[in-house]
Amino acid sequence: MMYSDIPSAQTLVLYFKSRGVKNIVISPGSRNAPLTISFTKNPFFKCFSVVDERCAAFFAMGMSQHLQEPVAVLCSSGSAMLNFYPAVAEAFYSDIPLIIVSADRPSYRIDIGDGQTIRQENVLDKHIGYSANLKQDVSHATNTISKYGKHLLEESQMEVQRYNESEIAKTLTVAFNDNYPVHINIPFEEPLYGRIEEPTVETQNIEVPYVQGESSQINWEELSTIWRNSSKKMVLVGVNQPNALEKEALNTLANDPTTLLFTETTSNLHHPNFFESIDSIIAPIEKSEHKDELFKKLQPDLLVTFGGLIVSKKIKAFLREYKPKNHWHIDTKRANDTFYCLTRHIPCNPNEFFKNVGDGVSGESKFKAFWEDKKDHYEKKREAYLEKIPFSDFIAFDCIIKTIPKGYQVHLANSSTVRYAQLFPLDQSLKVFCNRGTSGIDGSTSTAIGSSIYSKDATVLLTGDLSFFYDSNALWNRYVRPDFRIVLINNSGGGIFRILPGKEDTEEFETFFETSHDLTAQQLAEMYGFEHISVKNEEELEESLREFYTESNSPKILEVATPRVLNNKILLGYFDFIS
Amino acid sequence: MMYSDIPSAQTLVLYFKSRGVKNIVISPGSRNAPLTISFTKNPFFKCFSVVDERCAAFFAMGMSQHLQEPVAVLCSSGSAMLNFYPAVAEAFYSDIPLIIVSADRPSYRIDIGDGQTIRQENVLDKHIGYSANLKQDVSHATNTISKYGKHLLEESQMEVQRYNESEIAKTLTVAFNDNYPVHINIPFEEPLYGRIEEPTVETQNIEVPYVQGESSQINWEELSTIWRNSSKKMVLVGVNQPNALEKEALNTLANDPTTLLFTETTSNLHHPNFFESIDSIIAPIEKSEHKDELFKKLQPDLLVTFGGLIVSKKIKAFLREYKPKNHWHIDTKRANDTFYCLTRHIPCNPNEFFKNVGDGVSGESKFKAFWEDKKDHYEKKREAYLEKIPFSDFIAFDCIIKTIPKGYQVHLANSSTVRYAQLFPLDQSLKVFCNRGTSGIDGSTSTAIGSSIYSKDATVLLTGDLSFFYDSNALWNRYVRPDFRIVLINNSGGGIFRILPGKEDTEEFETFFETSHDLTAQQLAEMYGFEHISVKNEEELEESLREFYTESNSPKILEVATPRVLNNKILLGYFDFIS
Repeated sequence: MMYSDIPSAQTLVLYFKSRGVKNIVISPGSRNAPLTISFTKNPFFKCFSVVDERCAAFFAMGMSQHLQEPVAVLCSSGSAMLNFYPAVAEAFYSDIPLIIVSADRPSYRIDIGDGQTIRQENVLDKHIGYSANLKQDVSHATNTISKYGKHLLEESQMEVQRYNESEIAKTLTVAFNDNYPVHINIPFEEPLYGRIEEPTVETQNIEVPYVQGESSQINWEELSTIWRNSSKKMVLVGVNQPNALEKEALNTLANDPTTLLFTETTSNLHHPNFFESIDSIIAPIEKSEHKDELFKKLQPDLLVTFGGLIVSKKIKAFLREYKPKNHWHIDTKRANDTFYCLTRHIPCNPNEFFKNVGDGVSGESKFKAFWEDKKDHYEKKREAYLEKIPFSDFIAFDCIIKTIPKGYQVHLANSSTVRYAQLFPLDQSLKVFCNRGTSGIDGSTSTAIGSSIYSKDATVLLTGDLSFFYDSNALWNRYVRPDFRIVLINNSGGGIFRILPGKEDTEEFETFFETSHDLTAQQLAEMYGFEHISVKNEEELEESLREFYTESNSPKILEVATPRVLNNKILLGYFDFIS
Repeated sequence: MMYSDIPSAQTLVLYFKSRGVKNIVISPGSRNAPLTISFTKNPFFKCFSVVDERCAAFFAMGMSQHLQEPVAVLCSSGSAMLNFYPAVAEAFYSDIPLIIVSADRPSYRIDIGDGQTIRQENVLDKHIGYSANLKQDVSHATNTISKYGKHLLEESQMEVQRYNESEIAKTLTVAFNDNYPVHINIPFEEPLYGRIEEPTVETQNIEVPYVQGESSQINWEELSTIWRNSSKKMVLVGVNQPNALEKEALNTLANDPTTLLFTETTSNLHHPNFFESIDSIIAPIEKSEHKDELFKKLQPDLLVTFGGLIVSKKIKAFLREYKPKNHWHIDTKRANDTFYCLTRHIPCNPNEFFKNVGDGVSGESKFKAFWEDKKDHYEKKREAYLEKIPFSDFIAFDCIIKTIPKGYQVHLANSSTVRYAQLFPLDQSLKVFCNRGTSGIDGSTSTAIGSSIYSKDATVLLTGDLSFFYDSNALWNRYVRPDFRIVLINNSGGGIFRILPGKEDTEEFETFFETSHDLTAQQLAEMYGFEHISVKNEEELEESLREFYTESNSPKILEVATPRVLNNKILLGYFDFIS
């Protein structure tokens, strides 16, 4: 065991240990040496080294998302921590307790022209649960006090120690209880490399009490009455960890004729009676002559939502236009007014909610039955459509999704990938994740690798080419498991732009929207020790999928080339075909 | 010619055109479509498409640094703009007028659970010259007003138009006059793809008067007296554009026996009488038995600095310890108190300063002569040292630096590269650049490529392996010129960490500090169409350098493998040898 001889570094490490923050992702640097030394020389911690800070933060975030506990990512001073910011924003909107620890220079070094020195305090404040700006230890700065820092003398080391402990404790409380990303900035004076065998600080192990949500104050009788009296209920489920709903609640909902339950692949909730391809229901209505009538038929009295962000743009547009009388969002932390008609935030978890409101109206209701017919219709039509179209993204996703082995952890990249995935049924043993907090293409691969580290099951990432090449440094990672798999659907550019209304067949469009390219993953695979398989039609794809998930010594990338210009026509054609 | 039909998009584009912001780097997206359409369909603008926003911003910054004029970088909504932040911080501390333009969603879409939506307003505020948060056009939002946004009705379109123009004008004034990075955030409502042939807005072309610096109020007589009466003057030059000093001032300074002029490679100032390897003067003093005596001999009465940040840590440590009586910093904008003894900020340019203070004391002074002897000494010793050491970073830098063809633009990556480069004399026709604002390793390659685009001379980037692999996406750029050259000194890890005091021969050290690896650039070169040459000893290096700069159809990477463990011993040995 070894600690830095700097008191604040010891304090941080001791608090992380006592609260159980075990996993530390470290980007290299010198200013953070006091922490790097203390973490890596202490067997309680599991440390990971990732050079590119953008990847390091997404990697840590993926790990935190999987473990459902805080994971820390540590960097040196200067612009390093700014590279964490994309992952911080994603964690902020996805309720992931990523702990950012940035080593800083002493305050008298800021804005005086020193290298690797920026204004680090509070720099992430727009998207953070709490920012702790620790103070420099007086006891470790006797040298500098006389030279520069009269202000340092105004406080005693005891006061600084107390302040730092209390700030660290607050930060950890926010991370553990609110699942927010948090930031601890910690200034260190040179010398940075001093080390001792036992800590010199005696921490007071400050506890910051957590203020519980107010589920005790929910008026269940009132809610239950509204629930029972609503004959058209819609339950819409956003991003969720697998098995967020207990069996009983799930079965009750599945058999309630007054309730349509819409899921997305990222909901991780399955039942044959649920509606799992929202757009396949809504697109035909949009195209129908009886659009208004059908939308009114679908419009719920009561909308209940839980989980994170919703992928489907179509259901957002529908509910914003055909507003339910009541919209309740169930979440212990916050409620987004996604459809501009939120009437209640119900601060509990969904199991508690469904237990308390009880069954819906039983008796006669044709609400669900009507839409079940529609669902049967598009499911049959989808199969027929798949028979008649040429090889394309659409065919590829169908093949890929139905062959993922049971139990796998499935990561979906933004943005075409997660949208295509909504169109196909998914085996219910799969656990699906996607960075939907900001829906960025910037860190999907790093997140998937981080999430795979402690997974009992193997992980596959489905990704498009822009996401994949954007986060190419994700592969510069020495912890990738040999059972990690990437399926790269390479349509030579941002295929999604061809689906948007601005599409044109001009060079400007191809350059500035679609950003067409002719890259493949072959060289990256070679560089970073991945096996690489390349296919370009349905037969090759099916053939290679038969072997793809078998045990191997190296992780693998299966690259599927699809026709850039054809894909969007086939996707739009699907919605016509099922209408 | 084509414009978006959205008034604020037209207004921005018309202001950019009227003020001469010509170069626009665009990262793909849909929310920014109104601007992408308007810029790309207007022949006044030169547009560049770069997918990874981190690279896009450094690329734009390099271009701006070279052109010495504002360059804009544009992205879609969401986490995209956070990837700009590392370049923004560099631009902030390096006085580069990078214009960030972020497309945003309307304000009623923020924090309600929509995708690709974060809190964009003012998010860069810690490191920005000005942030303009434009308002959404009322005229383009009739649809949404009735549904969501009563607040939109409180202002008329005329008021919004006036506000937006005035904010854009302010932003451009700060960029053009203060050389700060600036941020314009601009919310767009759907539909985003409407276009028209002529703009519908009539801009008022608002001018924001620029408040001039106060060089007229400088008391030249007083300064000149102090200057002349100081018999030990030191002029220390930070990062500068080439030829910042006129011939006359340069010659006067070079021949003044009372003035030591210290330059760094990034100063871009040359004269045989200048001292261009600061550390080669100071390291031997640090090691001397007569350290204090020698430092006192070197300690100036008057320190005059100009230019950006200083690379040498040794001179910073020396001047902070042996403070001059006076420290004047010459800069129209700001003065860093780098040595904690700044007595005056002189708000003019260095030519004006040296013209006005006149000659230093002529007559007898041995101040400079004494140190010229030391300089002669280390120069001879350096040559002798090069004869006796094995192949290493030290030898490689000597070979590489002395063979760069005349007139080249030379980009140095952080951090070993720029430090090594200080030890060797540089041909005075070379123009040297380095991201010393934050001294990050995060964007050196992108910056160099951006800086090369409009350069009349060819560009070579000297880089270490961590910098190079960190910014590997820089090569994903369709504008790389065939005469662009990269010399990659690959010592299989963060070589600089072996020089720092924390070095150990343990696995933890190699993993978490040095981050050793066995990557080469071969695959990246193949992927992105660079010719790749690999050498591993002095003969191969010299041989390949003979052909390296000749005309070619593709850009080239020369990769020099040096011995990871030996390099630091040789570097430290150099300072012993010259002492």
